[in-house]
Amino acid sequence: MELIEALNWRYAAKRMNGEKVPEEKVNRILDAIQLAPTSLGLQPFSVIVVEDEQLKKEISEKSNQQPQVMEGSHLLVFASWNEVQDESIDRYMRDIATTRGVDEESLDGFKTMIKQFIGQEDVETVKNWTARQAYIAFGVGLVAAAAEKVDATPMEGFDKNEMDKILGLKEKGLSSVVMITLGYRDAEKDGLAAAQKVRRQKEELFVRA
Amino acid sequence: MELIEALNWRYAAKRMNGEKVPEEKVNRILDAIQLAPTSLGLQPFSVIVVEDEQLKKEISEKSNQQPQVMEGSHLLVFASWNEVQDESIDRYMRDIATTRGVDEESLDGFKTMIKQFIGQEDVETVKNWTARQAYIAFGVGLVAAAAEKVDATPMEGFDKNEMDKILGLKEKGLSSVVMITLGYRDAEKDGLAAAQKVRRQKEELFVRA
Repeated sequence: MELIEALNWRYAAKRMNGEKVPEEKVNRILDAIQLAPTSLGLQPFSVIVVEDEQLKKEISEKSNQQPQVMEGSHLLVFASWNEVQDESIDRYMRDIATTRGVDEESLDGFKTMIKQFIGQEDVETVKNWTARQAYIAFGVGLVAAAAEKVDATPMEGFDKNEMDKILGLKEKGLSSVVMITLGYRDAEKDGLAAAQKVRRQKEELFVRA
Repeated sequence: MELIEALNWRYAAKRMNGEKVPEEKVNRILDAIQLAPTSLGLQPFSVIVVEDEQLKKEISEKSNQQPQVMEGSHLLVFASWNEVQDESIDRYMRDIATTRGVDEESLDGFKTMIKQFIGQEDVETVKNWTARQAYIAFGVGLVAAAAEKVDATPMEGFDKNEMDKILGLKEKGLSSVVMITLGYRDAEKDGLAAAQKVRRQKEELFVRA
């Protein structure tokens, strides 16, 4: 697997050419996001897949009108849970029991552990924790796009409250945290397409202990 | 690139067999982490690569003695910046200028934007933001390990304060947020090695809009 090559190929395209990413590629990117590991396996987030031009336009207006929002064909908006309800944990236990063919009672220890872990934290800490889990899947999604030779621009620079309104996230107990625009780079219009990648030196980024 | 296959192969090994991950594989995983995208390209974190048995033992004692900490050969401890200092931003600008052969002055707008963005946020928000960037690289690192057929157990369950003390992170302006143990699964000892992967259904995880 030429992961390093794919990571070198990718960059945060600022201009895209409007070409539509084929559905099978989008689906493989979503498959990867679904398979991304998260703490406790809870996956406390949803990903809103936006293709509708009117919705994209509304989002664009709340994202400093960065061109790739309209020039990409799909937006993946990562929205994490505002709280972890007991019901969600119970449901997760049922899913494990069903998938693995085990008794739900055998998971009681795990269930209690999760509920205690969540219960001891304040609302803000839990929100930050669910957001961090979404960022793991976000990172995996960016790799998956590169593997498909699909450009994927990671974006935090949008009005989160407005995004939540546009997508009706609050009612669903969700808060938008970050998004990806999927499409194909327009290398002629994007001055950064040919730019050398800048990364911190290994001696700085890594500490051997 | 068989990314989906790699993601299906991987799981959070609870028991590892003590076999050492070859240095070239560790390096390729670190290459991927270095190449991971982050907001503004700032990479506001370090990764501590722990191989020393005594250090691993101390960490193990602060990680509920989960066996994979000692049974894996390397720990990658992701530690994010406690604050983003002007000096770090200035240094980043110099790196961009040098790497891309452009005048530093041409980056003044970008520099001002970053400083304003950071300056307007409170300390806790900045800390959570740098942590989220580390989680992107963490996600990419987990994929990279799978691509190398190296087992990688993601772990949040350790005493962060004690970890910071053991690794001397506070003095470096860093806080540990999450870690990966690298090694090889011990499928006989690990009851979960053969377990079916549990993931939320696509209809739940993804919302088409």
